[in-house]
Amino acid sequence: MPNLQVALDNNTIESALADAVKVGQIVDIIEAGTILILQEGDKAVKALRGVFPDKIIIADTKCADAGKTVAQNMANAGADWMTCICSATIPTMQAAATEVSDLQVELYGNWTKEDAQKWLDAGITQAIYHQSRDALLSGEVWGEKDLNRVKELVQMGFKVSVTGGLSPDVLPLFKGVDVYTFIAGRAITQASDPKKAAQAFKDVINKIWG
Amino acid sequence: MPNLQVALDNNTIESALADAVKVGQIVDIIEAGTILILQEGDKAVKALRGVFPDKIIIADTKCADAGKTVAQNMANAGADWMTCICSATIPTMQAAATEVSDLQVELYGNWTKEDAQKWLDAGITQAIYHQSRDALLSGEVWGEKDLNRVKELVQMGFKVSVTGGLSPDVLPLFKGVDVYTFIAGRAITQASDPKKAAQAFKDVINKIWG
Repeated sequence: MPNLQVALDNNTIESALADAVKVGQIVDIIEAGTILILQEGDKAVKALRGVFPDKIIIADTKCADAGKTVAQNMANAGADWMTCICSATIPTMQAAATEVSDLQVELYGNWTKEDAQKWLDAGITQAIYHQSRDALLSGEVWGEKDLNRVKELVQMGFKVSVTGGLSPDVLPLFKGVDVYTFIAGRAITQASDPKKAAQAFKDVINKIWG
Repeated sequence: MPNLQVALDNNTIESALADAVKVGQIVDIIEAGTILILQEGDKAVKALRGVFPDKIIIADTKCADAGKTVAQNMANAGADWMTCICSATIPTMQAAATEVSDLQVELYGNWTKEDAQKWLDAGITQAIYHQSRDALLSGEVWGEKDLNRVKELVQMGFKVSVTGGLSPDVLPLFKGVDVYTFIAGRAITQASDPKKAAQAFKDVINKIWG
């Protein structure tokens, strides 16, 4: 059954923690978002680890280079998993992967199936399929093309997380696809009742994949 | 004549400032490195802006998404320019570009000439040609292939910064190429005499392009 991950793209630790504690017991994975880490540094990860000692915590660094140093820093701060951007080199990914429990490749732009095979061959088994926030803002939506690429990655052997403009209404689109994790940010944190919003995601996941 | 930029990839603000004040009067541009921002957040940029009110300061966020928010945050912290990763979408780049004085595309992985033309068409005129730190660690070096790609970008109309494993010895390779900026990190900050090391870069730049 797919996991539910909340992405905290807040500007401050205080605001991120306030959001996190509302839904922390419902979601499976808590993400320190890129915006948050760029604003607050590794202290954002430390704060989440302090409040949620037993949850999977992801540092969404979208690391492109200096994989070893960035991953060491994030692991020291308490992150379990970390993200790297798909345009990072294989040596960067491998260097990062040795320092965290798991590394996730964030898929943006021109990646190919050959690239994906190279990541697998290098031992990277998690990928995040993205509808870019800015692409969504400019009117793009989830469609058949996205679904087919997600399916292809699953068939190749990746654990695939899916993110970008998700709502409980969108999830049935993925019926029959072995999605590893659905990631939602503001659809949960900006809801009038975040706890209810997180539970609504969980309910749909249970109904379709349970 | 090419600029000289020092990249501060320190883990703490204190260490970054200690390095920066040694060479701040010699270099043209000061970069808050990705490692530093991921560790210290926007406070790293604020600290550099405070100490260097009149220098060009770059926030090396390698932004992949949420361009507007990240760029607003970095501009608020005092950054003049910001970097985005080449696999970011055009809407992300455009959203970021409206918030900072200038946006630089960091070139990693599978970018094509067609991509580069799209960035130009979107008004993005700065690009950073990279030898990845991890690629360098695994033995890659500057060569004809890199030079040709840099030349191609310059001919297309980009202001091209060049970085990755540079030393004063390597700079003559770029003779005849209209490089906009040479970026050096540890070749300056980890030198036994950082001020002398920065001046050595400047001397070669003056000799070749002056």
